[in-house]
Amino acid sequence: MQEHYFIGVDGGGTKCKAVLQNHSGQIIGEGLSGSANPATDLPLAIKSIVESCEIALTQAGLPLNHLQFCHVGMGLAGVNLPSINRKMREWQNPFASVHLTTDLHIACLGAHDGHDGAVIITGTGSSAFAVVEGNQLNLGGHGFTAGDKCGGAWMGLAATKVCLEALDGLADYSPLVDSLKQHLKCTNATAIAEIVNGAPAVFFATLAPLVIRAAEQNDVNAVAILQNGGEYISKLAKRLLAHSGERLSMIGGLAPLITPWLDNEVQQRLVQPIHSPEFGALLLAQQQTGVTNSSLLIKKTTIKEAS
Amino acid sequence: MQEHYFIGVDGGGTKCKAVLQNHSGQIIGEGLSGSANPATDLPLAIKSIVESCEIALTQAGLPLNHLQFCHVGMGLAGVNLPSINRKMREWQNPFASVHLTTDLHIACLGAHDGHDGAVIITGTGSSAFAVVEGNQLNLGGHGFTAGDKCGGAWMGLAATKVCLEALDGLADYSPLVDSLKQHLKCTNATAIAEIVNGAPAVFFATLAPLVIRAAEQNDVNAVAILQNGGEYISKLAKRLLAHSGERLSMIGGLAPLITPWLDNEVQQRLVQPIHSPEFGALLLAQQQTGVTNSSLLIKKTTIKEAS
Repeated sequence: MQEHYFIGVDGGGTKCKAVLQNHSGQIIGEGLSGSANPATDLPLAIKSIVESCEIALTQAGLPLNHLQFCHVGMGLAGVNLPSINRKMREWQNPFASVHLTTDLHIACLGAHDGHDGAVIITGTGSSAFAVVEGNQLNLGGHGFTAGDKCGGAWMGLAATKVCLEALDGLADYSPLVDSLKQHLKCTNATAIAEIVNGAPAVFFATLAPLVIRAAEQNDVNAVAILQNGGEYISKLAKRLLAHSGERLSMIGGLAPLITPWLDNEVQQRLVQPIHSPEFGALLLAQQQTGVTNSSLLIKKTTIKEAS
Repeated sequence: MQEHYFIGVDGGGTKCKAVLQNHSGQIIGEGLSGSANPATDLPLAIKSIVESCEIALTQAGLPLNHLQFCHVGMGLAGVNLPSINRKMREWQNPFASVHLTTDLHIACLGAHDGHDGAVIITGTGSSAFAVVEGNQLNLGGHGFTAGDKCGGAWMGLAATKVCLEALDGLADYSPLVDSLKQHLKCTNATAIAEIVNGAPAVFFATLAPLVIRAAEQNDVNAVAILQNGGEYISKLAKRLLAHSGERLSMIGGLAPLITPWLDNEVQQRLVQPIHSPEFGALLLAQQQTGVTNSSLLIKKTTIKEAS
């Protein structure tokens, strides 16, 4: 009888990660490919997903036609939109089975080893997710500039605003103002306004490290920005904890930098995420195909990988 | 000897207004044409300026070749940018003389009958200007979304943010939230986020009346938005008063609606604007060509016009 495999896929706007596991629980291959956000570009997303899985198979020394023996858990940005979700499900895929969910869901499954729990994700944007007994809760993540508070883009825009106000003599002039002027190679407010107007989220996110560094030096404006952002994340955290009980993790590039700005009560409730999102996708594939003790299988191999 | 005329031109992104005055101080014609922002479209701006002046001449029963006897004061959006200013000055114009400045400057000249003073302008955006003994001070107006605080677009975006937070259970649910959902024909946060992400300033400015109306009913979220915006405008006002002394006027579509939210101290210092911006441009033309008692001449005619 042909052996079956599990693949976990984590697809986002910039890259797609796949992790391949054999039936005895060993991680035997990994693949990394390009953009896989089906809301932005569906054919490209499909191409990237298949490519990352093929790379993982090749790394494991398996032929590409073995995709047909793979049960795939897949977490993708954009599939919260009903139209995109339907299109992905209509895809005549090459796998044994596909179990589709959002990138937030697999991040949460990974962080809590497949168990109930919640996550707050802060990178360029910010969003939050919890799952309890199959019930999902999505909060935040409404996009730049109306939502995504305390993400990197929000932080950079907040710094730009206070810098412009300080140059107009309407806010305290602090070292953050100088560091922003220097970073943007501008000497006055008009020059800064010309650069920043209409700039995308990724541009503002590149300014976030200036805010973090300034706040570490007790810069009055940077501290105010992170206190304000931290308040929002603390409110998110309390809502999630009320919904999901015990386990809450902060993940994403800004997570360790924002954590010190959260309420003490919230900080004390945070737990370290156990696995990364692609392993959450793997757990989803195992759960959906009825494999038991799946979390143990992954734990064993990731511990082995790390040693 | 050929009689000379004065024209005041107020040119902005949506329209261009001209007002024509004869040498004895009477307003004898007015013209209205299309977009005249040279930073957006220089040839169109020039076309609109000439057209508005020709309409004013025709209304006065004068031939179009009389443009050559007209001294023109001109306040245009965008000429604060050095490159745009140079291009406008290079224009081989059909007038006796052209005296070019910004739209803010003529608004200030008009509001204070050609004398020193300051203005705060709140419409879709917000900005501030003062002139004292020839020295100009520009504050604010750095564009949506990094600047222009307390303009209509800022107000609409602030309402959208609090609405999304309220729908996530992170802010108070107030009648403003319902009015915004109804206005956008949305029942949930995801639908609102899809509409507002990437929307331009003019879109958000259409939401400002919802905030104003809700605040009049003591809506907790709307009141917080207008208090926050009002604080910013009050700070602007104090900076301007420190620079320009006595006269400060609020102008623009939102001015009467925002005034109640300013510091009492600031409200008591506000004076009504005397003329509209195109008359400020007329005063500029008179000042620059050495005509004295110009303000009296305008006052007489506008009083006559109004009766």
